[in-house]
Amino acid sequence: MERPARGRAKKTGLPAGALMHTGERKSGDVRIDLMEYNVASLHERQLSGLDACLSFRHRETITWLNVDGLHDAELMGKIGSCFSLHPLVLEDVLSTDQRPKYEDYDEYLYIVVRMLRYDADVMKAKAEQVSIILSQNYVLTFQEGFAGDVFEPVRTRLREDKGRLRKMGADYLAYSLLDTIVDNYFIVLDQIGERIELLENELVTNPTRKTLRMIHTLRGDALFLRRAVWPLREVINSFTRGDSPFITDATRLYLKDVYDHTIHAIDTLETYREILSGMLDIYLSSMSNRLNEVMKVLTIIATIFMPLTFLAGVYGMNFKHMPELAWQWSYPALWLIMIAIAGTMLIIFRRKKWI
Amino acid sequence: MERPARGRAKKTGLPAGALMHTGERKSGDVRIDLMEYNVASLHERQLSGLDACLSFRHRETITWLNVDGLHDAELMGKIGSCFSLHPLVLEDVLSTDQRPKYEDYDEYLYIVVRMLRYDADVMKAKAEQVSIILSQNYVLTFQEGFAGDVFEPVRTRLREDKGRLRKMGADYLAYSLLDTIVDNYFIVLDQIGERIELLENELVTNPTRKTLRMIHTLRGDALFLRRAVWPLREVINSFTRGDSPFITDATRLYLKDVYDHTIHAIDTLETYREILSGMLDIYLSSMSNRLNEVMKVLTIIATIFMPLTFLAGVYGMNFKHMPELAWQWSYPALWLIMIAIAGTMLIIFRRKKWI
Amino acid sequence: MERPARGRAKKTGLPAGALMHTGERKSGDVRIDLMEYNVASLHERQLSGLDACLSFRHRETITWLNVDGLHDAELMGKIGSCFSLHPLVLEDVLSTDQRPKYEDYDEYLYIVVRMLRYDADVMKAKAEQVSIILSQNYVLTFQEGFAGDVFEPVRTRLREDKGRLRKMGADYLAYSLLDTIVDNYFIVLDQIGERIELLENELVTNPTRKTLRMIHTLRGDALFLRRAVWPLREVINSFTRGDSPFITDATRLYLKDVYDHTIHAIDTLETYREILSGMLDIYLSSMSNRLNEVMKVLTIIATIFMPLTFLAGVYGMNFKHMPELAWQWSYPALWLIMIAIAGTMLIIFRRKKWI
Amino acid sequence: MERPARGRAKKTGLPAGALMHTGERKSGDVRIDLMEYNVASLHERQLSGLDACLSFRHRETITWLNVDGLHDAELMGKIGSCFSLHPLVLEDVLSTDQRPKYEDYDEYLYIVVRMLRYDADVMKAKAEQVSIILSQNYVLTFQEGFAGDVFEPVRTRLREDKGRLRKMGADYLAYSLLDTIVDNYFIVLDQIGERIELLENELVTNPTRKTLRMIHTLRGDALFLRRAVWPLREVINSFTRGDSPFITDATRLYLKDVYDHTIHAIDTLETYREILSGMLDIYLSSMSNRLNEVMKVLTIIATIFMPLTFLAGVYGMNFKHMPELAWQWSYPALWLIMIAIAGTMLIIFRRKKWI
Amino acid sequence: MERPARGRAKKTGLPAGALMHTGERKSGDVRIDLMEYNVASLHERQLSGLDACLSFRHRETITWLNVDGLHDAELMGKIGSCFSLHPLVLEDVLSTDQRPKYEDYDEYLYIVVRMLRYDADVMKAKAEQVSIILSQNYVLTFQEGFAGDVFEPVRTRLREDKGRLRKMGADYLAYSLLDTIVDNYFIVLDQIGERIELLENELVTNPTRKTLRMIHTLRGDALFLRRAVWPLREVINSFTRGDSPFITDATRLYLKDVYDHTIHAIDTLETYREILSGMLDIYLSSMSNRLNEVMKVLTIIATIFMPLTFLAGVYGMNFKHMPELAWQWSYPALWLIMIAIAGTMLIIFRRKKWI
Repeated sequence: MERPARGRAKKTGLPAGALMHTGERKSGDVRIDLMEYNVASLHERQLSGLDACLSFRHRETITWLNVDGLHDAELMGKIGSCFSLHPLVLEDVLSTDQRPKYEDYDEYLYIVVRMLRYDADVMKAKAEQVSIILSQNYVLTFQEGFAGDVFEPVRTRLREDKGRLRKMGADYLAYSLLDTIVDNYFIVLDQIGERIELLENELVTNPTRKTLRMIHTLRGDALFLRRAVWPLREVINSFTRGDSPFITDATRLYLKDVYDHTIHAIDTLETYREILSGMLDIYLSSMSNRLNEVMKVLTIIATIFMPLTFLAGVYGMNFKHMPELAWQWSYPALWLIMIAIAGTMLIIFRRKKWI
Repeated sequence: MERPARGRAKKTGLPAGALMHTGERKSGDVRIDLMEYNVASLHERQLSGLDACLSFRHRETITWLNVDGLHDAELMGKIGSCFSLHPLVLEDVLSTDQRPKYEDYDEYLYIVVRMLRYDADVMKAKAEQVSIILSQNYVLTFQEGFAGDVFEPVRTRLREDKGRLRKMGADYLAYSLLDTIVDNYFIVLDQIGERIELLENELVTNPTRKTLRMIHTLRGDALFLRRAVWPLREVINSFTRGDSPFITDATRLYLKDVYDHTIHAIDTLETYREILSGMLDIYLSSMSNRLNEVMKVLTIIATIFMPLTFLAGVYGMNFKHMPELAWQWSYPALWLIMIAIAGTMLIIFRRKKWI
Repeated sequence: MERPARGRAKKTGLPAGALMHTGERKSGDVRIDLMEYNVASLHERQLSGLDACLSFRHRETITWLNVDGLHDAELMGKIGSCFSLHPLVLEDVLSTDQRPKYEDYDEYLYIVVRMLRYDADVMKAKAEQVSIILSQNYVLTFQEGFAGDVFEPVRTRLREDKGRLRKMGADYLAYSLLDTIVDNYFIVLDQIGERIELLENELVTNPTRKTLRMIHTLRGDALFLRRAVWPLREVINSFTRGDSPFITDATRLYLKDVYDHTIHAIDTLETYREILSGMLDIYLSSMSNRLNEVMKVLTIIATIFMPLTFLAGVYGMNFKHMPELAWQWSYPALWLIMIAIAGTMLIIFRRKKWI
Repeated sequence: MERPARGRAKKTGLPAGALMHTGERKSGDVRIDLMEYNVASLHERQLSGLDACLSFRHRETITWLNVDGLHDAELMGKIGSCFSLHPLVLEDVLSTDQRPKYEDYDEYLYIVVRMLRYDADVMKAKAEQVSIILSQNYVLTFQEGFAGDVFEPVRTRLREDKGRLRKMGADYLAYSLLDTIVDNYFIVLDQIGERIELLENELVTNPTRKTLRMIHTLRGDALFLRRAVWPLREVINSFTRGDSPFITDATRLYLKDVYDHTIHAIDTLETYREILSGMLDIYLSSMSNRLNEVMKVLTIIATIFMPLTFLAGVYGMNFKHMPELAWQWSYPALWLIMIAIAGTMLIIFRRKKWI
Repeated sequence: MERPARGRAKKTGLPAGALMHTGERKSGDVRIDLMEYNVASLHERQLSGLDACLSFRHRETITWLNVDGLHDAELMGKIGSCFSLHPLVLEDVLSTDQRPKYEDYDEYLYIVVRMLRYDADVMKAKAEQVSIILSQNYVLTFQEGFAGDVFEPVRTRLREDKGRLRKMGADYLAYSLLDTIVDNYFIVLDQIGERIELLENELVTNPTRKTLRMIHTLRGDALFLRRAVWPLREVINSFTRGDSPFITDATRLYLKDVYDHTIHAIDTLETYREILSGMLDIYLSSMSNRLNEVMKVLTIIATIFMPLTFLAGVYGMNFKHMPELAWQWSYPALWLIMIAIAGTMLIIFRRKKWI
């Protein structure tokens, strides 16, 4: 289980705006990707630090600054002052256990989302927080970067000038990033769906204790996703309906599309949760079914052999005066009686549909 | 289980508006049915492609273009540009795992619904996505077409000029199509209702593991329908209350009627879900009831024969000094004692209402 | 189980406004009761058909036309055109599986409710749909009439001029009819309450499989009522708060009273549902309690007699060299040992509170 | 179980405003307490009937008329006409199974609440309906009076001129009465809380069938309180926020306080409900735990003695050619073998943590 | 279990505004901490009583008065009159079982929250009520003080002039206090999370009755926290959105941050509740799994040995004419037969996957 309160608990007692990184990645290089583009041109650079305050803020091009790695507090402070970010925004960027949220700070919009990326190598989803800051002509994105880069397709589309990305503003870039993030949810969802499908077969053919543990794990995964996806609905809704001048009407239509995808993801999740909870019912009832079967076997065996063993015991007694013992045919007769008793029992059990 | 996230997962990383068909039907002829009508006349044609941009857009008649088969991306692009559809609309038409939705694009209204059709041959409901685009004087409908054509009754009414269909506008045609789709929900619902009725009898008379599996399957079906029907409520509500100039007040009254039917379908579904969940309780308690019965049989047999076998064992011992063994009547006396013990046990069990 | 989707499923493919009766009663005479009254006078007639269009529409008196039996489509059409009812209204009157609803058609208000009547002879509630149409000076009511007539007390009060019914308008008549219908819910509710009371005693004293079936049946009844009562809340609320000129402020106060009764009925229903679901828990745990008891009996018997039978078996062995067999007092000594073992077991079980 | 629909069912078919008392107390004297007070003076009288219409309505003092006993329809009618109460109000006062509600009748406000009083003698809560009518300078309260008088502390405060009761208007008196009623809820709640505490201990140490019955009873009590308390929230909210001229802003602050207490009571109730439902889970799992224990004992005994008894049986056989029987040490050797088998079994069971 | 209705029940019958302390701490010194500060200076004093009404109310500095200990009614009265607090506010400060709430009294804002502090020594969370009163230039805080002082970090920041606390107004001080209180929730939450993590392992490896009791206890803790945290959401929301002149826009942004943290805490709590309820399911099914295992062992033993014991019994019978007894190889032949039977049984059980 992820412990969602851990990061926050560490920060107790610190003043608001104190820059303390609560994420998992603690070392390594910070990588800054800078892309400046308009319809006509595209410049791409990779920075290892931020020496001078960038001058692109009032240019004609659109600037996208992507920061991979949040553990260098000094660098983050520099970026904050360059783009005059509110201390609370910087604090939230560094506290990597934020709930998805949207805030309008007049000069820029601040969006926090959780990015999920399915790592095919280890067959597991990785999650990390992505902060997006959108203004008139720039977009800043912050991530820890350990879960890999889901933004690569966007970069490729920018480079190859595919689609309408280069033709539109910073808001459309922010939309494209959100869209990519939400699209990745479906890959994780589809993986869960595939595992549920496998489990359903297993449940019908041969449910074991491992099946139960799988159901439990999948429920945990669904819960985990839920915490990432549910708040996103409200976030994208506020983003779309907000009256910020940075978002054009054309982009709003596209954002509405991302909103629909989010609802679709939520719907799918809720469906999975219902299916999983139905599977648990099936599992429990198949357990009690098995118990019934085991008990039936025991009862059949006991009910057949107990009377027979009793009869054998009776004729093993050592009384002097037991006339049957001396009779010529009593031994084979007893065998017949015992076979008759066993046969009758079997017929009764068949009638009761136990066998 | 249907995997609701599969289609969406395939499209990850593509730019918005990329035309990728995510549906099941991948090949075969695309069929385009064209009907042009007004009060006085009706022209019906079947096109195999779209050579020139159709000129009907500014005629006096109402045009209904129905496309069966969505896998020909080039054709879809042509239709898109002919009717100047927004790229997102075309994308949604092709992504056949959309949640039902309603969108107002000023020049036209875009509605996505899920069509269910009960196939009596294979005793199963088939589902596919239907997109309806409504403008002043035309209606476009898109479907994959593998689930059969539920629109035939509407065509017949147009041809035979029954009801008020020919006398009213394109909005009334769109209403009629929606109404037909919702009516088909009730056929599927009624099938589920019939199977629930059968199951209820089975549950009372002879519940088996198959009964449980049926309950599980029906719950899955109900969940499946639910995902089609619940969002429709909001869709038709927005459609009815929207201020689009394409919908007349007369039609609004009829749409209110479809809305009522949708609520009715939702109500029925929720009732089914409650009944099914009550049936699961009954099943589980009938399982535990059976276990009780089995255990009672075992206990009765064991409780009667264990003491008797013990007694027989005692008189099978080989001690030299066992005076009872030599007595004249001890053997029949023991039989009497054993019968008395068994009788007493039986009376006790009867008092406890075990037999 | 009632199959709520059956009626609707039959109508698939028909155009809106098609008059198809989906109710249960298919034949017999249609009975039309006509009452015309004001403060001073009351005329009562029974019609078997509708020959000419009634001329009462613009009179000073208030007219109440009650139709018992809906299967004569021609007659219904005549009534529809006489009172210029919208085709959808007529369709809804005939589709007797409507959800309770309220619609304002400017010239009249249309209300659909479900009437429940407790039939003391067969100890069962009967349900049917009642349509009420209210205009300035007339009230139309439509019912199938097989569930008996709950409106008789209203007629009596009209005839005997009791209360303020004759002094007030058509809206007060409609209120009185609704009030009578809602009052009848409480009789059905009280019957369910009485049966729950009986069941609670049975559950404590002697729960059987029949008890479980009764709980299941009562849950079904509660579900059935729920579908009739829940939507009524919204219906009466819209009716009361609507701005229709046909409803006076004086009557609104009375409608508020019916609304309170409906809320009361819903509250009662929800309480019943909670009680029934608690009873199921009690039943299940009493089942597992019984299993515990049965198992204890089995375990006590087995635990006492298995060691004893073993001992008897030991001294039944035929070894040549078994010194105990020859001793003088070994037989009675063994009896003492066996009684001691049994006694110890019994003391242990008493300590464990098994006996 | 209380049957909440009983009172209402009795009234079916009566016209609105018909005065029929549906409460429990059917006879005995009706007691009318009259208090007239202002800052300077207080007059207190007890009336046995209402001979002439009281003239206090337009005096400077505040009048509080409390009626204990509602079964004298004639008297109630007189009071109704004296204070010109609406027939529906009088009807509601007499129907003692009303849901708590608030209604603004312009000339007065009408509030129905349920009063609970913990009767320490019989260790049970008693409930009855209290109707409060508040106007500019008078307050009427109606109760059946069988559950004792919770208003005595208010009277004492009036007599002894404690607090600000005498200094403020009729609205503050109404507030004080409501506050007293809500305060009494907490006594009942605390009693339930105490019983839950006792049960929790019992559940851990020694759960019996009685424990289950207690849980069931407490759930019933919580349900009963819930029906009294939940609607009160809305009642006091409407009362506080209403724009009636009878309520001053100063009193509104105090009413807000009662509102907070009501929310507190609801919170407490919901907490109790969650705890009780958790206790049921614990009970059920402790039942299945016990079954496990019982089964383990049975299995251990059977698993040890069955093989031993078999071995004893083998050497009790009467074959002519059984060489072991004649060996010198075979008897003690068999004992060793049997002890070894039993010991091995015990070790296995200890490894499985069964013993 | 805490009994949430106890404090309120004690106060029944007292007039509103009566000062009765309902908390736990009943004696000891009352400690009053006074801090007066602005950007330039900071004065800190500790008072043991309130001799004269403090004169700081109209100074330029910001005053923070923290009262530890609420049992001295006289002192509380003095403070109340010094700061002209409404009697209801004073009453609420002393009733230490208040639900978190926010009230705007024009001259000051009144906030009640529940403070949780994790006491590492006894490994348990302690809770007490904190009342915060905020006006233009002073903040009053009231606590019982038994749960230790969570405000120390705020004092340290004031003394050392860290962060922007000294530079901003009284509203920012109130925010800092709230933030500190909410931060402490996460420590308690993280402790619960840690215990859940431990339990999850235990549940997989070796669930015992103690595990169940732990789950139950943790659910109780989560319920306890829930009652503290849920209402806080609304409180901070009202506080942030209220139009009080005491709160500046700058502080509103910070309050929004506390609001986000509260939502985060609620989210975490709900996640914990779902996990715990999933764990209960796992526990119950692991119980039934164990029962299955136990029953299988019993059934295997019984099924193997019952037939064998029967056979041994047969050849222990004393019939004169049993030809097998005299045969040379019958004894070893019987052994072979018995081993064959046992082997067959074992193979069957392995096929059934019982062993």
